[in-house]
Amino acid sequence: MRQFILYAKKASTSPDFSLDDLPGSGGRMDLVARCICNALWISHALRRDSCIHVVACGSPNPPIVISFYGDTLRGVSPDERNIAAWIKKALSRKRKNPGIIIRKISFQQLIEELASEGTIFYILDEKGTDMAHLKKLKEASVFVLGDHLGLPEKEEKFVERFEHEKISLGTTSYLASQCITVLHYELDKNKI
Amino acid sequence: MRQFILYAKKASTSPDFSLDDLPGSGGRMDLVARCICNALWISHALRRDSCIHVVACGSPNPPIVISFYGDTLRGVSPDERNIAAWIKKALSRKRKNPGIIIRKISFQQLIEELASEGTIFYILDEKGTDMAHLKKLKEASVFVLGDHLGLPEKEEKFVERFEHEKISLGTTSYLASQCITVLHYELDKNKI
Repeated sequence: MRQFILYAKKASTSPDFSLDDLPGSGGRMDLVARCICNALWISHALRRDSCIHVVACGSPNPPIVISFYGDTLRGVSPDERNIAAWIKKALSRKRKNPGIIIRKISFQQLIEELASEGTIFYILDEKGTDMAHLKKLKEASVFVLGDHLGLPEKEEKFVERFEHEKISLGTTSYLASQCITVLHYELDKNKI
Repeated sequence: MRQFILYAKKASTSPDFSLDDLPGSGGRMDLVARCICNALWISHALRRDSCIHVVACGSPNPPIVISFYGDTLRGVSPDERNIAAWIKKALSRKRKNPGIIIRKISFQQLIEELASEGTIFYILDEKGTDMAHLKKLKEASVFVLGDHLGLPEKEEKFVERFEHEKISLGTTSYLASQCITVLHYELDKNKI
């Protein structure tokens, strides 16, 4: 299972954001949707072996963890508006999708939960080991990413209490959604 | 200069598509916007050395080539809706952006034009040479991609008349927008 955690500092925790203004009223819900798209979609298919946990930390009710699972997701399109529409539905608890789970837990609770499953955390960090040079990745791996504002130091320090490695994608600072694409690409080559 | 060409078979050639329905009324304008985002944006910056030419072949007035240039683009956000809104403005000839050029030329005319500049074309093809094994790329390189429906054989054969190479990104079929991210990533490592 390939798991991604996106810490989304401003992402709305209410369903009242506008689909016509994902960057503003959604608290960069466009960025969140792009990350979900790249975590789960490939051409004409979903990655059944992948999931992404978005830790939404925006107003009015932070934190909320929104998880999308490739193996059970149904009826969602890869465009930003449709993914965001499904997040709205999930936040309003109105319509259920078997591949989307909403929980009122924090980033640290999520990390503790995943750590208990014997996972290793790969934290994206420009000073880390170059991903392209990593020979072997543990099968139960979780990639931890920040949004455009980065992963708060407090949260990073918390992840460091558990088995972890800092990895880099080179000297270019990519969008979070692009980091996910590159991680999948490297994993696809290595076939963990 | 890193150049990308996206052949977008259904992309609208009229500004009358709805920003609320990019996949349907826009003829997969969501896909087009994602490709433009990944061709030009990185974290907190634009790639000044890159451009993307979208060959829109949808109704009612195909073909139209919509080019976005990273070095001159102004005031555009990386979300699908904003990029699509700028495509609408450009197609309606109402508002100009120095980084967006619209031309009533065909895919083949675009290829001929770029070929005359001494470029080499890299055609994305699953049976091609693995991109990760390519040692050296020519500086004036153009990557040719199809959308979800692929590059028509007639157009592919036309590109093959010029200096070209077929390249692959491995055995996974990525979204066109993800291919662009991976190509940039490999180029960033190689630093052509």
